[in-house]
Amino acid sequence: MKTLIVVSHPEFQDSITQAFLKTSQAGLDDVTWHCLDEIYGSDPIDIQAERELLNGADRIIFQFPLYWYSAPASLKIWEDDVLSRAYTYASEEGHLKDKELGIVTSVGYPKSAFAAGASQSFSISQIMIPYEALAKQAGMKFMKPLVIAQFGYSTDEEKSQLLVDYQMYLTAKYPFSFNERETWMIQQLKKLASGNMKNHQQELDLIIQELETGQDDLNDLKEQINLIRNKEED
Amino acid sequence: MKTLIVVSHPEFQDSITQAFLKTSQAGLDDVTWHCLDEIYGSDPIDIQAERELLNGADRIIFQFPLYWYSAPASLKIWEDDVLSRAYTYASEEGHLKDKELGIVTSVGYPKSAFAAGASQSFSISQIMIPYEALAKQAGMKFMKPLVIAQFGYSTDEEKSQLLVDYQMYLTAKYPFSFNERETWMIQQLKKLASGNMKNHQQELDLIIQELETGQDDLNDLKEQINLIRNKEED
Repeated sequence: MKTLIVVSHPEFQDSITQAFLKTSQAGLDDVTWHCLDEIYGSDPIDIQAERELLNGADRIIFQFPLYWYSAPASLKIWEDDVLSRAYTYASEEGHLKDKELGIVTSVGYPKSAFAAGASQSFSISQIMIPYEALAKQAGMKFMKPLVIAQFGYSTDEEKSQLLVDYQMYLTAKYPFSFNERETWMIQQLKKLASGNMKNHQQELDLIIQELETGQDDLNDLKEQINLIRNKEED
Repeated sequence: MKTLIVVSHPEFQDSITQAFLKTSQAGLDDVTWHCLDEIYGSDPIDIQAERELLNGADRIIFQFPLYWYSAPASLKIWEDDVLSRAYTYASEEGHLKDKELGIVTSVGYPKSAFAAGASQSFSISQIMIPYEALAKQAGMKFMKPLVIAQFGYSTDEEKSQLLVDYQMYLTAKYPFSFNERETWMIQQLKKLASGNMKNHQQELDLIIQELETGQDDLNDLKEQINLIRNKEED
């Protein structure tokens, strides 16, 4: 699966959030970091090149800080230029059909502020409706947005969690069920074990074994529950 | 009351909808037509000049064709540049506080397409949430959007109706109750009667008289209903 991250951030060079995300995805296979502001500045967009990138991707991520409840202008310029009706609509050429559209957005408020009656008045789901509508029109699967709240105040533990969540958002099979998360985690650890972590081979092997056993146990439990359910229905 | 129409349309010169709206507002007092694409093209925005215009307005209208469920990029560039947090937030300098924010948007689908299960999947109210959230944050009153659906297919009668609806949206007291609409209509007719419609003075006077009588009748009816209600509550 190939993932394209379309980054929109007018101050991408000064953003610690974007620097963190850029580093987090750096080692991943089949992931392309594509920062519009860095590539184009105020130059016109190369529509053909952008479409080739899109055509080659299975998962497309719009990544941006939330400015006035939307992406910064550079993403809107890109949308208006690249996504013509003919190219995009599922009912026409439909080049984006069956691909996935994800949103990674950073906000300057706690997540709890995005609710009726709270300081931001609306939920992230409501604010993202224009992107969800685009996905629908294009025949894309819309992914639940990954929200990064007040990154500057994050603890080291929260940052580690974000790194995992972000890598998973870019590369794991969607939707991210508990089972899917574990499978992904095991894959990552196996990659680490086969790579340049030779010194910690034994510890990694143990963690992998532990997770795999846990996953087997979980599947056993699920089967038992199903058996009980079926019995009750008899 | 002063109204500022902030128009965002990359092809404003070729748009028959915008041409119609421009003509419709041309004779109105205290209404300013302000087309971003015409004024700035690809030049940087004069933030100070824009803020002075905003400061002098009581009602601010964002007027645009709906591109990907949002305004064209020129309005987002303007928002990101002009509406700094300090200038805009009601909790900070709050320069837009207590002003009204209206939306006039033209769409290429019938209004019925904007609903769950219909071709556009979401309602106009849902699609406009980013603007409503902006209004809330700025302490502005958000007006129900005026939607112009498939203008190109409009009959002459529909166009006459749009002209009245648009002029009212720009100048009548909000919210537009039935009574408020009638009062506005009488004002407009009086202006016509006192202006260059001398030839039709008698007809206009008759229409005005008819409307005023109708409004008196309506008020009488309302009072009677209130009397009946109060009696029931006794």
